[in-house]
Amino acid sequence: MSHLALGPGAEFDRIRGIAGALGARAADLGDDCALIPSQGEFLALSIDLSVEGTHFRREWLSLEELGWRAAASALSDLAAEAATPIGVLVSLGMPAGSAAGDAEAVMLGVGAAVDSVGGKVLGGDLSSAPGWILDVAVIGRTARPIRRAGARPGDGLWVTGRLGGARAALAAWLAGGTPEPAARHAFAHPEPRIAAAGWLAARGGRAMIDLSDGLAGDAGHLAAASGVAIELTLEAVPQHATVASAAARAGLPAPDFAALGGEDYELLVALPPEFTTADATGFERETGLPLTRVGAAREGRGVRCTLKGKERTLRGFDHFA
Amino acid sequence: MSHLALGPGAEFDRIRGIAGALGARAADLGDDCALIPSQGEFLALSIDLSVEGTHFRREWLSLEELGWRAAASALSDLAAEAATPIGVLVSLGMPAGSAAGDAEAVMLGVGAAVDSVGGKVLGGDLSSAPGWILDVAVIGRTARPIRRAGARPGDGLWVTGRLGGARAALAAWLAGGTPEPAARHAFAHPEPRIAAAGWLAARGGRAMIDLSDGLAGDAGHLAAASGVAIELTLEAVPQHATVASAAARAGLPAPDFAALGGEDYELLVALPPEFTTADATGFERETGLPLTRVGAAREGRGVRCTLKGKERTLRGFDHFA
Repeated sequence: MSHLALGPGAEFDRIRGIAGALGARAADLGDDCALIPSQGEFLALSIDLSVEGTHFRREWLSLEELGWRAAASALSDLAAEAATPIGVLVSLGMPAGSAAGDAEAVMLGVGAAVDSVGGKVLGGDLSSAPGWILDVAVIGRTARPIRRAGARPGDGLWVTGRLGGARAALAAWLAGGTPEPAARHAFAHPEPRIAAAGWLAARGGRAMIDLSDGLAGDAGHLAAASGVAIELTLEAVPQHATVASAAARAGLPAPDFAALGGEDYELLVALPPEFTTADATGFERETGLPLTRVGAAREGRGVRCTLKGKERTLRGFDHFA
Repeated sequence: MSHLALGPGAEFDRIRGIAGALGARAADLGDDCALIPSQGEFLALSIDLSVEGTHFRREWLSLEELGWRAAASALSDLAAEAATPIGVLVSLGMPAGSAAGDAEAVMLGVGAAVDSVGGKVLGGDLSSAPGWILDVAVIGRTARPIRRAGARPGDGLWVTGRLGGARAALAAWLAGGTPEPAARHAFAHPEPRIAAAGWLAARGGRAMIDLSDGLAGDAGHLAAASGVAIELTLEAVPQHATVASAAARAGLPAPDFAALGGEDYELLVALPPEFTTADATGFERETGLPLTRVGAAREGRGVRCTLKGKERTLRGFDHFA
């Protein structure tokens, strides 16, 4: 086992095992991006794999949406580091029988996502494969990265946007139904929070992570990397408009549903205690997104969730649990 | 259709189609690496996808070999650009039921390949998947990249090492047999020609590509990018020790077999006319590899192969032909 500071879970045990086995052959693997010092700034690099049957089913999304979503989720790791995108490289595995135009359709979605944050498609690889595979490597740069480490006891924990929309879509599909359009949009069209991250960095953001596995699980990584405990107040978690009905169908309290929803690609950020809801109003004015205080960092370790004062146990998504 | 200067083939038609569809949203997609100017030098980036059933069968290779081969083939793109590796990011898709230690085994192979050329494992992504997927993104730097463009009429075309070994292994497996150990080694353990590329860059290398799809096909990309014709003399192509017997089993002339063999990850380089076989001896002394003149660049376009003066038509590997 390595000292790698990630939260609990079988997937993260595997990453800890890999880091331990590689020793000095690996850089620090415990952040949203690898950071490479480069003449007074840092290059930020990350990679994000989407596999048909694991991350999506082909019938849920158009090929352009598939491309947008894969690129946006990878670009979200640059946002989490407060980095400015340079571009992406895309490996695309295509099933036998896919048409020549299918690759173009996927890449138009990728291109639109990258273009929306000022980057370019830098390169790629095409291959035949048993099913659709999209793997997106991102590169950006930042003078002052915001890492997962850096939260201090007393800091407020804040989230951008509203949570649970992607999960509402997923729950509908997995139940054999059709998601509400707004939930479908949240799943198919996440927006990399690059501009929001720049604002938060400029306002003293101390630690940040993007929400890919769900608030509860991802808060665990931030807590572990920062060496603090995080208390989350579930009733404060801003809910996507489709959460109430989706949670009712799932027989779960809506705050639990929102806090467990993965793949929202919003940001969780630790801001100093003096950051106020009035400051958050300025964020909303500039980015069009709410910024909501959902908890605080304390002395200690781990994540403690409460709903109206009662403790609740929640876990994020885990590929290998 | 875009102006993208690649050789013929359905796979490259798809890449041309993508570049045309993306327009200004894509950088130049026609080289081994994307090149990003960065304060007086270039960052070089590439990505390389290996999929079980397409690029390998699980029973052919150990997990460590799988990792080495995927990383080495991606690092080979940095060699083709005469870039020095910084490191790799690896997306790993694992089939259900794979053991926790399997990811470590694959990543030890990746780590060994990257370590052999002075780089690090910078990051990655783990996912469950229907079969094994390894996608490796590489980053390096170079003050003076060698592109596919740059060959001039009169230049000699030279290859490092010996060709056809990986194909000999593949042919044996696909025929239900067992490859000779040296052929198996060539397939499982390609060496990224980073040091060789540095030597060739210092000696005036004008254009370069790594041999992933076979000499004939890859020469077509170099010819197209450079705006020259390339004449290849097949009897001059240096053959891997296992080619003679493998070609006999396949009922092909050995020179054709060697020139069509993909995945050797040797380098094809255009050197000025004054570069001689005596200079090549110096290369061999320093790198331990032969450097063999296999043809020349001429005015014109396309690739012309001859075997003892008679013209022959050869095509490289194409995923979508």
